Amino acid sequence: MQHGQVKPAPETARDPRAHLLARYRTVRERTEALAKHLTPEDMLLQAMPDASPTRWHLAHTSWFFEEFVLQRFEGSFAPYDPHYAYLFNSYYNSVGEQWPRDRRGLLSRPSAADVFAYRAAIDERVEGLLSDLSEGGFAEAAEIITLGLHHEEQHQELLCTDIKAAFALNPLAPAAFAMPEALEEEPEDQGPAANDRWVSFEGGIHAIGHEGEDFAFDNETKRHKVYLDDFSLHGTPVTNGQFLAFIEDGGYRAASLWLAEGWDWRAREAVVHPVYWRKVDGAWFEFTLHGLIPLRPDRILSHVSAYEAFAFAEWAGARLPREAEVEVALSKSDPAAGQFLDPAGFVHPHLVGRDNGLGSAFGTVWDWTQSAYSAYPGFRPAAGAIGEYNGKFMSSQLVLKGGSCATPPGHIRATYRNFFPPDARWQFTGIRLARDV
Amino acid sequence: MQHGQVKPAPETARDPRAHLLARYRTVRERTEALAKHLTPEDMLLQAMPDASPTRWHLAHTSWFFEEFVLQRFEGSFAPYDPHYAYLFNSYYNSVGEQWPRDRRGLLSRPSAADVFAYRAAIDERVEGLLSDLSEGGFAEAAEIITLGLHHEEQHQELLCTDIKAAFALNPLAPAAFAMPEALEEEPEDQGPAANDRWVSFEGGIHAIGHEGEDFAFDNETKRHKVYLDDFSLHGTPVTNGQFLAFIEDGGYRAASLWLAEGWDWRAREAVVHPVYWRKVDGAWFEFTLHGLIPLRPDRILSHVSAYEAFAFAEWAGARLPREAEVEVALSKSDPAAGQFLDPAGFVHPHLVGRDNGLGSAFGTVWDWTQSAYSAYPGFRPAAGAIGEYNGKFMSSQLVLKGGSCATPPGHIRATYRNFFPPDARWQFTGIRLARDV
Amino acid sequence: MQHGQVKPAPETARDPRAHLLARYRTVRERTEALAKHLTPEDMLLQAMPDASPTRWHLAHTSWFFEEFVLQRFEGSFAPYDPHYAYLFNSYYNSVGEQWPRDRRGLLSRPSAADVFAYRAAIDERVEGLLSDLSEGGFAEAAEIITLGLHHEEQHQELLCTDIKAAFALNPLAPAAFAMPEALEEEPEDQGPAANDRWVSFEGGIHAIGHEGEDFAFDNETKRHKVYLDDFSLHGTPVTNGQFLAFIEDGGYRAASLWLAEGWDWRAREAVVHPVYWRKVDGAWFEFTLHGLIPLRPDRILSHVSAYEAFAFAEWAGARLPREAEVEVALSKSDPAAGQFLDPAGFVHPHLVGRDNGLGSAFGTVWDWTQSAYSAYPGFRPAAGAIGEYNGKFMSSQLVLKGGSCATPPGHIRATYRNFFPPDARWQFTGIRLARDV
Amino acid sequence: MQHGQVKPAPETARDPRAHLLARYRTVRERTEALAKHLTPEDMLLQAMPDASPTRWHLAHTSWFFEEFVLQRFEGSFAPYDPHYAYLFNSYYNSVGEQWPRDRRGLLSRPSAADVFAYRAAIDERVEGLLSDLSEGGFAEAAEIITLGLHHEEQHQELLCTDIKAAFALNPLAPAAFAMPEALEEEPEDQGPAANDRWVSFEGGIHAIGHEGEDFAFDNETKRHKVYLDDFSLHGTPVTNGQFLAFIEDGGYRAASLWLAEGWDWRAREAVVHPVYWRKVDGAWFEFTLHGLIPLRPDRILSHVSAYEAFAFAEWAGARLPREAEVEVALSKSDPAAGQFLDPAGFVHPHLVGRDNGLGSAFGTVWDWTQSAYSAYPGFRPAAGAIGEYNGKFMSSQLVLKGGSCATPPGHIRATYRNFFPPDARWQFTGIRLARDV
Repeated sequence: MQHGQVKPAPETARDPRAHLLARYRTVRERTEALAKHLTPEDMLLQAMPDASPTRWHLAHTSWFFEEFVLQRFEGSFAPYDPHYAYLFNSYYNSVGEQWPRDRRGLLSRPSAADVFAYRAAIDERVEGLLSDLSEGGFAEAAEIITLGLHHEEQHQELLCTDIKAAFALNPLAPAAFAMPEALEEEPEDQGPAANDRWVSFEGGIHAIGHEGEDFAFDNETKRHKVYLDDFSLHGTPVTNGQFLAFIEDGGYRAASLWLAEGWDWRAREAVVHPVYWRKVDGAWFEFTLHGLIPLRPDRILSHVSAYEAFAFAEWAGARLPREAEVEVALSKSDPAAGQFLDPAGFVHPHLVGRDNGLGSAFGTVWDWTQSAYSAYPGFRPAAGAIGEYNGKFMSSQLVLKGGSCATPPGHIRATYRNFFPPDARWQFTGIRLARDV
Repeated sequence: MQHGQVKPAPETARDPRAHLLARYRTVRERTEALAKHLTPEDMLLQAMPDASPTRWHLAHTSWFFEEFVLQRFEGSFAPYDPHYAYLFNSYYNSVGEQWPRDRRGLLSRPSAADVFAYRAAIDERVEGLLSDLSEGGFAEAAEIITLGLHHEEQHQELLCTDIKAAFALNPLAPAAFAMPEALEEEPEDQGPAANDRWVSFEGGIHAIGHEGEDFAFDNETKRHKVYLDDFSLHGTPVTNGQFLAFIEDGGYRAASLWLAEGWDWRAREAVVHPVYWRKVDGAWFEFTLHGLIPLRPDRILSHVSAYEAFAFAEWAGARLPREAEVEVALSKSDPAAGQFLDPAGFVHPHLVGRDNGLGSAFGTVWDWTQSAYSAYPGFRPAAGAIGEYNGKFMSSQLVLKGGSCATPPGHIRATYRNFFPPDARWQFTGIRLARDV
Repeated sequence: MQHGQVKPAPETARDPRAHLLARYRTVRERTEALAKHLTPEDMLLQAMPDASPTRWHLAHTSWFFEEFVLQRFEGSFAPYDPHYAYLFNSYYNSVGEQWPRDRRGLLSRPSAADVFAYRAAIDERVEGLLSDLSEGGFAEAAEIITLGLHHEEQHQELLCTDIKAAFALNPLAPAAFAMPEALEEEPEDQGPAANDRWVSFEGGIHAIGHEGEDFAFDNETKRHKVYLDDFSLHGTPVTNGQFLAFIEDGGYRAASLWLAEGWDWRAREAVVHPVYWRKVDGAWFEFTLHGLIPLRPDRILSHVSAYEAFAFAEWAGARLPREAEVEVALSKSDPAAGQFLDPAGFVHPHLVGRDNGLGSAFGTVWDWTQSAYSAYPGFRPAAGAIGEYNGKFMSSQLVLKGGSCATPPGHIRATYRNFFPPDARWQFTGIRLARDV
Repeated sequence: MQHGQVKPAPETARDPRAHLLARYRTVRERTEALAKHLTPEDMLLQAMPDASPTRWHLAHTSWFFEEFVLQRFEGSFAPYDPHYAYLFNSYYNSVGEQWPRDRRGLLSRPSAADVFAYRAAIDERVEGLLSDLSEGGFAEAAEIITLGLHHEEQHQELLCTDIKAAFALNPLAPAAFAMPEALEEEPEDQGPAANDRWVSFEGGIHAIGHEGEDFAFDNETKRHKVYLDDFSLHGTPVTNGQFLAFIEDGGYRAASLWLAEGWDWRAREAVVHPVYWRKVDGAWFEFTLHGLIPLRPDRILSHVSAYEAFAFAEWAGARLPREAEVEVALSKSDPAAGQFLDPAGFVHPHLVGRDNGLGSAFGTVWDWTQSAYSAYPGFRPAAGAIGEYNGKFMSSQLVLKGGSCATPPGHIRATYRNFFPPDARWQFTGIRLARDV
């Protein structure tokens, strides 16, 4: 998931400075809340090249403000530490060289404490700017700060999935978050949700993509027309119980269900169940951000690759939806009704809901689509480093829609385009079935 | 490039049996004509896992008829050799195990002579069937034989590009084909074609994909509507001279022009020019199927990856076309006007044409599109082994359109969907620029 | 470097229990002293599969006492934590499965604090045993405890070289140890030691290997005869200045100086100077456990592979010594005179000594020999897990002799056989030239 | 196995020119006899980077004479083909660049016919030299020609083992040689030879290595003293039947029997039996140069790695011999009594002999020793390209002694040092047990 250029976001009310300051603090504090139960050592873990240490997320999101806001708007800018631009730049080639991504876990210095001090110093300087800037300067800076906050929200989700990937490798199965008490009041297992309700949508010309003044990333533009045939989507994402039936029916051993590339991936990686499932003494468990818990068939399935999603859909006699189909459905749904990131709550898919009316298509798990992530008609990345890029990742990735239980609340919208390669499993990715009508 | 299920193809005239027999012989003979200048040893070469030995193409295309025609329609079928199903099956899992693809070059036995004998025996049996079958049997068999011939035509192109890839590794630069004399009459170098004419197309709802009785592969169906904005395509594919300007302008060193994945590929593979270009004593040459020849700026560029195509388009201030855009253009063009495979001719892009009116958008080089290869609405692969598949390759590949100088004449059509991964360079792949209007 | 079975070591004096307790405390405290300046995060770093995190060394050395002493001698043994045998076993197959070696750096739990608590608990229990055991029990336990202490001393050296390898990857060049003040009093650079004095040794039958009651590892036995021709060794190890001359003379580019395997290694790893040398603005620096310091030509060279050692020797018109040759020389040298590990001192080769009489052949750097590490005549590994092994590593490694500035004082002897593969560079390995007389 | 510098070899009798000519023809003809049953395509096969195509052996051995004899002694030397020095040089860096070793199988041109023509032309020129050279010139040339013939004999063995490795990958199990009729007269299976006789040797100072006027490679010099303890060797090499007992006793699953490196190798390569053993319908077969034949327990075991040899010896309560021990034994044995290469005979270990007195320690299979291949005291490689080298391979390889059924007759002697890495299995390598007395 990457970020990019921005349409200005006047999420402001009466006092735009106060409003932005409040939002700035909310976002920045949430990031730190996510690390509350982690030790300095936990924050150094890097499970694989694609995942970053907690500490790196903490620092990189601050470097973004230093590089793109402070450097431009502070009267007498001096870097906090001359090494940080090298250490905490992610992939902005036009800004300079970057510390190799697969070695982020080898940087015990700067220490976790150093990184928190860095965050505090940047916060102080950004907050200072917010009150000191002229009217015009503020308007310009506000745009980039808003982008920076959305950028940081994206990293909040990655921080969760990256530490989960690291803890999953530890035989002690550590928990990144405390288990919320409320969970103990969950009803008895309801079994897999019945595959009982499809919601139909009418074809024809639809418009998708972003336009208007609200914030959106550059890859959501420009809004354009697409032609769709009639289609229907299943009312709920696939559950653990449904996926278990696929496994028990030999789904992982039936070549005819799989994409050729997925079939090879499965063999090469010896995949025989979702990545965080564990069988202990004959019973299934799930490794979660709250540690190892019994697998409930009535919870929504998460952490599958697009290959597994494709094979499951074949097995179920359905197909994965197209990007535009999900966007059409999401545009009729209420983003606030979904399950989103709460550092004090359950950061794992809840029980499947029962309404099946697509009333809450947002949240819980990202829906894999069959659509390759590519440029919308008329898309042009923004100029300069900030325009690096959503565009440059437009190859060999698929679009995901809707947000997950690790997506910060308020961060998502129908036009939002997340993207990952088809073999990625460490995000909260799930399956929403579609079919032709 | 893969093949698949078929819409029946009554390309027949008055006498369908005679007609099919004639076509059968034409195709089968052309395959052998392609190997005319190769030694038994040349026919064993395998340059890389994705490329197959000539001998394997000769045998596999015969095995296709044995497996899918003879086995089904011969009264008392017996396999020619019980090992061949294992050795010459490509990827039909439902038919059985396959000899590992990356080891096809290690099979010196069966010998080249054995393989030609196998071809002759299969031909005799297929031709026997054509006269012996009942009316109904013939109609059924004709469908599959027609598919088998289109399948063999696809392998004709691969035979050319695979032996080229192998000979390219030999410092002696062997020629797979004799150089036609006519070529010596070519005019003096005209320099790169002026980038002077764009052809505009009107947007709105278009229909793409195949319908009707003529032959087409399953992945071309079903015909469906798409919405396109107005767009234009350049009148000619990019020339060597234009690409040379890109190189000289530092195109391979400018990160901002490249997809992130392409930028990494370029570094990992140390790519600094098209794969068959060679610099000898300061002058550029091209390795071709006719050996090493001086690079002419006025020839059409071939053998670039989609990454190079994307970067070139960025540099040129344009973009790669979408699949549907090229299909719309092709549907207004004459397939017969292009440059196609002639075993006795020049199997390399000719000089760029001068009309620039997209009158001959077919042939010469395949146009990379920016469109991922995926299922058309309503697409369902055929049942059985023959339905393996165009469908199972629908991930991580891009669509190419229009055919090349190694595509057999008559094999192409506007709806034809070729597909390769973005890093593939050993096909006759070129660049057709597009832009929004 | 591995450990193994032991000849009983009655290093005891009047009161063997008090003696062993004192030695136990000295060794255990030194290990912790080595980690004094490291943060919990530093202690998690793993630079490569062959190097372990500090924390792992701290825990593994304690596990050794738990597994081989407490479990056997405690009346009512219960494991400190049931996971630890899995997490902190190094390679004792007969004791059970092991956490994969290349993933030791992914275990942020148990935390550094947990590990120190583990050490304290084990210490308390071992010390309890020392006073509680019967006479006979003590004698038996003392043997294994003595082995455990030598084992821990080996890990002290590895702890130093492993954290050095990790810090070397950090662009901030952190220091693992404080720089001792005394160093500032070093004389001005004396230039490379003149290559001026060779010490001759007489050939004939010599005895090498260990016998007697003092402690030794099993691979040092049995003492046996070897026949040597006359030979001579250079009076001092090679200096930085001498190696610089090799570099400046094109040593890394002259194939004829290298073993074929070394020549390929050099190309594959892009080696053009010793691994911890850095060129900054035209001047040479060395990365040390005390951070980055200017390279002094009069210091003794360290951290070269056996390939570099072999090439240098060729260039110098000499050869690497044989194992037995160095042992003969060491047997005439005073082990106490060398430079050994002092957590408060300079853990890097001092200036080259000037006597050149091989009076202090011990310490400073390990001497690569040309001898493969293999079994002495009559060698048999001890029975049981503790006998795993020096023996099982007897392939594809070379013997090193004499100890280094990271070897604990008192740990070395003439018969000591250290061993590493020829490409290893992260130990304090140097070059002692030899020649035939 | 590599070759190198030579002690001059006046194997000559009355007429040295006639003698050398006869030997030249014998060796050169035997090489071609080995390829008699191979097709041009077979001769192109390269099973792995370490193995070369037959055709390359045919050409390389000729290039050796062109490069080191013709170029030096012909009055007006002109290269046969200017590309050949690049294509057919193996690893002589000082002579020039080399075609990459792992791509020898991709050179279908020059063709097999070209290569035989090259051989004929070189033969004509060398034979011309032999009669034309002056007395002094002849003496000098004879030395190098003699080396070239020994070099070619080494490649005869490799030609056999390399084509065997290639044919082993073909499911058709082709035969490189005709099966000799005599074999059908073999007695009924005698079961594994009883492990019944050890031959003792007295320790003390022995001399090993070559001296004198006969031909030897440079790595066999200089002759020097070694001290050995008393030892004994088993009277016969290990048989298939004995190794089968090791397998059935779980030898491949018992970590304690293996070197650590071997244990990992076994797991990584999934080794559970000797490389050319095949289990078909419950019965064991061996793939041989004569095709697939039933495994006889009373045949001598071949094609095991040093890791397997080491584990077997551990299991058998014995050990592998040291290089010097085998040389001492060989020096008392008759080289002519062994089984050596006969292109018209059985190129596979015969039945085990029954005398058990080490009368024929030569031939049949190479004995792995536990000794690393390293320089003898006083060894110096010869100057110039020909001195490239035995010396440069003196790392990470083990010495093998005695020759095999693929070693040309007359090519072996007690001092001969063959060497391969411990994981090599494609040579005719076997096990000779040793033990301390």
